Amino acid sequence: MKKRIYSVLVENRSGVLCKVAGLFSRRCFNIDSLAVGETDDSMVSCMTIVSSGDERTIEQIEKQLNKKLDVIKVKTFEEQQCITRELMLIKIKYNKSNRREIMELCEIMKADIVDMSKHFMMIQICDTPERIRLMINQLQTISIVEVARTGTLALAKCMENDAQT
Amino acid sequence: MKKRIYSVLVENRSGVLCKVAGLFSRRCFNIDSLAVGETDDSMVSCMTIVSSGDERTIEQIEKQLNKKLDVIKVKTFEEQQCITRELMLIKIKYNKSNRREIMELCEIMKADIVDMSKHFMMIQICDTPERIRLMINQLQTISIVEVARTGTLALAKCMENDAQT
Repeated sequence: MKKRIYSVLVENRSGVLCKVAGLFSRRCFNIDSLAVGETDDSMVSCMTIVSSGDERTIEQIEKQLNKKLDVIKVKTFEEQQCITRELMLIKIKYNKSNRREIMELCEIMKADIVDMSKHFMMIQICDTPERIRLMINQLQTISIVEVARTGTLALAKCMENDAQT
Repeated sequence: MKKRIYSVLVENRSGVLCKVAGLFSRRCFNIDSLAVGETDDSMVSCMTIVSSGDERTIEQIEKQLNKKLDVIKVKTFEEQQCITRELMLIKIKYNKSNRREIMELCEIMKADIVDMSKHFMMIQICDTPERIRLMINQLQTISIVEVARTGTLALAKCMENDAQT
């Protein structure tokens, strides 16, 4: 089983997401993570999908994706070929005695405290999936109230032969 | 038409995503953005969906979502009730004459340069959807090669009556 990252440009239309997600689920491939967002062109959305499978199924998925009418472009990557980032918002309960510790943790992890009330704080962190997991582990000893996390976002590393679209 | 943010906790299983996306597309509601990620519990995924509709359809969607077996919890928010963040990776072409300008822009926008080669740079920015748009506008005068963006992530603002799950 290999982990593969699919970067799929699709037309920004109702139903496209479902078609693409259906392609994975019909083959019982679990989507580990998914991020759908706009691009610089409002008619085009970009889906970043992380999924695992053997070489043959990876090829099949790529082929099937390319056949879909609403799919403009498909690229697949192995993890080491791209820069990967995730975003997490995490709400925790704090008190006077651990506030300093939380602030230091945020400093170490380059995370930001983006909201707070008397007993609660919201932390934003944007980093690699590994470091996001590390942050969760560190905060687990405090008191996590709620977590929201995007799927993995990926872009091929900068190289001199990059297409200049 | 109102913009609404749905925060949906679902069982982390193949096909769930498709069911939820299908619910929107069958009613021809466009999903403006979608972020699917893990939570602190590996069996549970969190979907953050931004969609627009009138009051009646918003209620309907919420009801239908609650009926799905794999859906654990649904919360809907208006934009001003939450902290919203998006993540973007953007690759640009640079040269000696605009490198300083790009670095200054990153400083102003609290963005980071995360990769570079002789002619290309990758910038990471994590901010509100408005400021992400602002960043794209600023970079459009330079030379955008590629953009990957997550959907909007949202978490209810910190309040003293927060459930402490």
